[in-house]
Amino acid sequence: MIIKLDKNIKKEAKNLILQKLQDVGYKSNIVTTKYDNYIIGVGSKQFDIRSIGSLEGIKDIHRVTAAAKLVSKKWKTQDTIIDLGDSVKIGGGNFQIMAGPCSIESEDQIEKTVQHLLENNIKIMRGGVYKPRSSPYAFRGLGIEGLKLFYKHCHANGIKIITEVMMTSQIESMYEYIDIFQVGARNSQNFNLLDALGKQDKPIMLKRGLSGTLDELLASAEYIFSNGNEDIMLCERGIRTYENSYRNTFDINSIPVLKKKSHLPVIIDASHGVGIREFVEPISLAGIIAGGDAVITEVHEIPQIAFSDGAQTLSHLEANKYYQNVRNTVAFREKLIQF
Amino acid sequence: MIIKLDKNIKKEAKNLILQKLQDVGYKSNIVTTKYDNYIIGVGSKQFDIRSIGSLEGIKDIHRVTAAAKLVSKKWKTQDTIIDLGDSVKIGGGNFQIMAGPCSIESEDQIEKTVQHLLENNIKIMRGGVYKPRSSPYAFRGLGIEGLKLFYKHCHANGIKIITEVMMTSQIESMYEYIDIFQVGARNSQNFNLLDALGKQDKPIMLKRGLSGTLDELLASAEYIFSNGNEDIMLCERGIRTYENSYRNTFDINSIPVLKKKSHLPVIIDASHGVGIREFVEPISLAGIIAGGDAVITEVHEIPQIAFSDGAQTLSHLEANKYYQNVRNTVAFREKLIQF
Amino acid sequence: MIIKLDKNIKKEAKNLILQKLQDVGYKSNIVTTKYDNYIIGVGSKQFDIRSIGSLEGIKDIHRVTAAAKLVSKKWKTQDTIIDLGDSVKIGGGNFQIMAGPCSIESEDQIEKTVQHLLENNIKIMRGGVYKPRSSPYAFRGLGIEGLKLFYKHCHANGIKIITEVMMTSQIESMYEYIDIFQVGARNSQNFNLLDALGKQDKPIMLKRGLSGTLDELLASAEYIFSNGNEDIMLCERGIRTYENSYRNTFDINSIPVLKKKSHLPVIIDASHGVGIREFVEPISLAGIIAGGDAVITEVHEIPQIAFSDGAQTLSHLEANKYYQNVRNTVAFREKLIQF
Amino acid sequence: MIIKLDKNIKKEAKNLILQKLQDVGYKSNIVTTKYDNYIIGVGSKQFDIRSIGSLEGIKDIHRVTAAAKLVSKKWKTQDTIIDLGDSVKIGGGNFQIMAGPCSIESEDQIEKTVQHLLENNIKIMRGGVYKPRSSPYAFRGLGIEGLKLFYKHCHANGIKIITEVMMTSQIESMYEYIDIFQVGARNSQNFNLLDALGKQDKPIMLKRGLSGTLDELLASAEYIFSNGNEDIMLCERGIRTYENSYRNTFDINSIPVLKKKSHLPVIIDASHGVGIREFVEPISLAGIIAGGDAVITEVHEIPQIAFSDGAQTLSHLEANKYYQNVRNTVAFREKLIQF
Repeated sequence: MIIKLDKNIKKEAKNLILQKLQDVGYKSNIVTTKYDNYIIGVGSKQFDIRSIGSLEGIKDIHRVTAAAKLVSKKWKTQDTIIDLGDSVKIGGGNFQIMAGPCSIESEDQIEKTVQHLLENNIKIMRGGVYKPRSSPYAFRGLGIEGLKLFYKHCHANGIKIITEVMMTSQIESMYEYIDIFQVGARNSQNFNLLDALGKQDKPIMLKRGLSGTLDELLASAEYIFSNGNEDIMLCERGIRTYENSYRNTFDINSIPVLKKKSHLPVIIDASHGVGIREFVEPISLAGIIAGGDAVITEVHEIPQIAFSDGAQTLSHLEANKYYQNVRNTVAFREKLIQF
Repeated sequence: MIIKLDKNIKKEAKNLILQKLQDVGYKSNIVTTKYDNYIIGVGSKQFDIRSIGSLEGIKDIHRVTAAAKLVSKKWKTQDTIIDLGDSVKIGGGNFQIMAGPCSIESEDQIEKTVQHLLENNIKIMRGGVYKPRSSPYAFRGLGIEGLKLFYKHCHANGIKIITEVMMTSQIESMYEYIDIFQVGARNSQNFNLLDALGKQDKPIMLKRGLSGTLDELLASAEYIFSNGNEDIMLCERGIRTYENSYRNTFDINSIPVLKKKSHLPVIIDASHGVGIREFVEPISLAGIIAGGDAVITEVHEIPQIAFSDGAQTLSHLEANKYYQNVRNTVAFREKLIQF
Repeated sequence: MIIKLDKNIKKEAKNLILQKLQDVGYKSNIVTTKYDNYIIGVGSKQFDIRSIGSLEGIKDIHRVTAAAKLVSKKWKTQDTIIDLGDSVKIGGGNFQIMAGPCSIESEDQIEKTVQHLLENNIKIMRGGVYKPRSSPYAFRGLGIEGLKLFYKHCHANGIKIITEVMMTSQIESMYEYIDIFQVGARNSQNFNLLDALGKQDKPIMLKRGLSGTLDELLASAEYIFSNGNEDIMLCERGIRTYENSYRNTFDINSIPVLKKKSHLPVIIDASHGVGIREFVEPISLAGIIAGGDAVITEVHEIPQIAFSDGAQTLSHLEANKYYQNVRNTVAFREKLIQF
Repeated sequence: MIIKLDKNIKKEAKNLILQKLQDVGYKSNIVTTKYDNYIIGVGSKQFDIRSIGSLEGIKDIHRVTAAAKLVSKKWKTQDTIIDLGDSVKIGGGNFQIMAGPCSIESEDQIEKTVQHLLENNIKIMRGGVYKPRSSPYAFRGLGIEGLKLFYKHCHANGIKIITEVMMTSQIESMYEYIDIFQVGARNSQNFNLLDALGKQDKPIMLKRGLSGTLDELLASAEYIFSNGNEDIMLCERGIRTYENSYRNTFDINSIPVLKKKSHLPVIIDASHGVGIREFVEPISLAGIIAGGDAVITEVHEIPQIAFSDGAQTLSHLEANKYYQNVRNTVAFREKLIQF
């Protein structure tokens, strides 16, 4: 049960609601975001919610039985829009392209990427400085020093930054240099990290787990929201199946299903979703037609020498065409006949 | 190794080729289709293929090491076009919509579907008369009598028929009433059925197995081709995964990957691929953008009373809009910038 | 609903039952096996089954809502015992070892295998004469002539034969030479083949599909039973997953789960279940401890030269030890403390 | 490449080795555990390792190309034995039972469990105080205060403690109260946590990811080892598949495969591996026969009122029998004929 409170609810009124919930055996969770205040009641007893809904200080009350409540479209029917400032928005009809290398490798590489993005009017750059790698002996990223370089060039050119955070203790030092915290597939159920990110006031892009269900993805988003951060994006990046002709199986079904279940924007990561350069474009465009709100795509001046993920990375030359087809497809989608 | 023979090769020349292959320890498979004659040599020894290629009566020779040879794009780089007559073609830039109910239920239902297809200028009707059902107690189709009714109304209105064949002994009686034999997912590796269909001169649409790999799908197509039938279409209908929010996981990656590996047309079955009515359109359109050559879609005047698969079936009303969006997307795809 | 009839029920009494079922909107399926006669009623209406149960000529009546009814342990709580004659039994506490090559290759190979089985007191030989192979160019078995040789040597030595049947039209010619018809994983939902095998009076061993669920396996067994053949064994042979360190994932859970759901014997195929020679023994023994009623195992005098599946085949030398450990484990299992 | 150093190697000799590795383009990782000192060289160039092996101060050198090196049996052929003190050992022929509730719930519950374990001569108690839960609104454990209670009663009775650590910042406060740090399935690739645990001198039990491959599990173990902690156990707890008749698919194949690939002990978690109380015993015994070094099993005085995982938890009464069958099976395993 979700109870949305009046912003200026009195303390006594709030306590009365909490008391009433306790009386029917419900556990209360108080959620405060920068936009609103909620009480989430969790319990199994059936009762007439009007007996609570009629209390003073309540703006709205809604029964949601699924594990994911605040992120559910049953509760909030309007699409969430992530506003990154400078008119850069994602969701609710605002489409963005996020592009850049898998790993931040050098200042020269950053400069060339920024130049490439500027030429293509791309507003958000991706790039990893903390890299989760299966092997402890692989390149693990340039760390906070890499991020500072990353920030220097993006900030100077009005480009927003999305990069992965791997652990709670990195959040503070990363905070001032990033615009979106990315949670990787391997941390999709790292609940302590989600708790901590829920306490930040910057947007989070949450990737689906390697074999995560859609309901688990939404429950992970609920962790962030219930800690106070409403600005969440969900990212489909392919799932693990028995098929070996490509890297991961991009779950195209997830896009309309997530858009139906949740009000949060859904981001398309076709680079990981198929893992083979020449198929990144068709899968991205398919994801757009199916309803995605943004693409996040690996590009590199010369993918063959990239430190990681070269096989799924577009060259800047290929990317120039890719961006045009992406934008044309977004424009075409607007013209589809709606019911 | 694929050896394409001159149409008027002399018997002695052919025998010489077979002898040469035997000399290097290769097993020969003679393949005769309505278009061409081939010898498929299978062996592991490395040798200079020019020593065979220079023999009399050989049009072309090509080394293909994968299990699937004749269906490979490495061998035949031009797309296969399935010609159903009356200018109804699939593949090589020819897109078709196939639509109709899951099961043929009654003459009245056939008439209403035919009327619906005519109104929408659809040239191919789908509908099962032999239904593979998990339970022996479920409705298993109207059988050959249903097919005759199906044929009567389609034939009178210039509509082609695609329907599933489940066993070899059904082929002969079905033959004159159908335009495309469909092989269902559960029979995707029913090799005896594939052998028998390879001896027919009507096109085959082969569905991917429930958890079939793309290479297995191509190897199954190779069964058909190597028995003499080149007119094969591959159908992506979703695979079985751990995700339970929908019926099957439509493998969008399979479409560009199959188009790259093979010259055969690839058909999109979003009805089974997602299994929920409201998502059939976005998944179909995504499949088109990704490169599919046709859609096969379940439609029913009133899906709620359909004998089978109602939950994934579009009403005729919904389908009217669906066809327009499908056609617009095909047209849009033509305008994408190519490398 | 399962209605077990008196063996000497009068025609009028039977018709009355069918009429009563029709009156409540149930579809009736008459099932006659060599042991019993049944009517399977299928419908959704709730009513007091005593109103039918009290009719003349009914031995027993039971409501079973699952798709699989006759094979369910809810209906028949006693384990099915497959009796192959000469005191060779499987199920209900009777354990058997079935062993032999993947493919029957030659008379010499048969003779050596028979000798090996005799030395180890093994009563059932496996060996394929019709081989389902992914590629049409692979060895596809010696066919019926191979089966006759197989029969000649086994029959002369009192050894039973299990071999795979791939299509309905093979049944008649195979019938006199075999003791158990095996249905392979790729034909696990070849419903026409299951229908036809249900009309035979020899036992069937039904393999689970490549990615078949346990409920699908039971529903496929129901096809056989409802056509009149009660003598069915279920075979766990591993499922397809994302893991690539071995061939298939042997689903050890399936063994106690199937034994709980069904009264049919459960057979352990560790050769396919793990696909690597050195692990066949531990997986077989694990399957026994978990409750399996037999093992079916690939053995070959010299696996390295086997026509197929050599990598998962035990040499005769290895097999000698294997059989002893299998038998010791079966004996040990008897001594486990039961609740 | 693994280079094991003399314990008293001189600084100059060590530097010479590092220099030589650099000369051939190899990256060096220095690993110091409480038992030994290593240099791990990572590179792709082929060269005669004797040119390095002959240098001063080297005890042993070995080429290991897989990602997982130090945990590989190719390097260390002798089984690792985890010594918890007081003669409680795991691995190398030493079998242990770890048992206890899913969650630590109360002091009363701890006392009853300890009493139950003492009666059954069980030396290690499991119990979660930090619980990873899909939903943020579920019970998340008693935390460090629960752990102190847990410790008080176990310590007083000579029982060792295994409990899950979810984040790096918990390690320090947990350290003095635990004997084994458990890494849960959702943190199996939380590389920062693995790095931090690699710096501890207490054993780690690392669970396989929800859909983790065996090679990923070993690479995660390599993270711990390469940070300096050799005392690692691997835990099979079932993987996620399409099958829904039970909770997870216990991967019985993983046990002999992991034992072959690695020298680390392998632990059987049948509670999560099948997820249904009545099947926990057969799956545990199967895991033992297949080669497991310990079981970790959920038990609760009254599973029906457990805070979490009740459906897969044995009652103390059921557990009494379970322990006997476990021990008898371990004893029986010793008697199997070895090659």
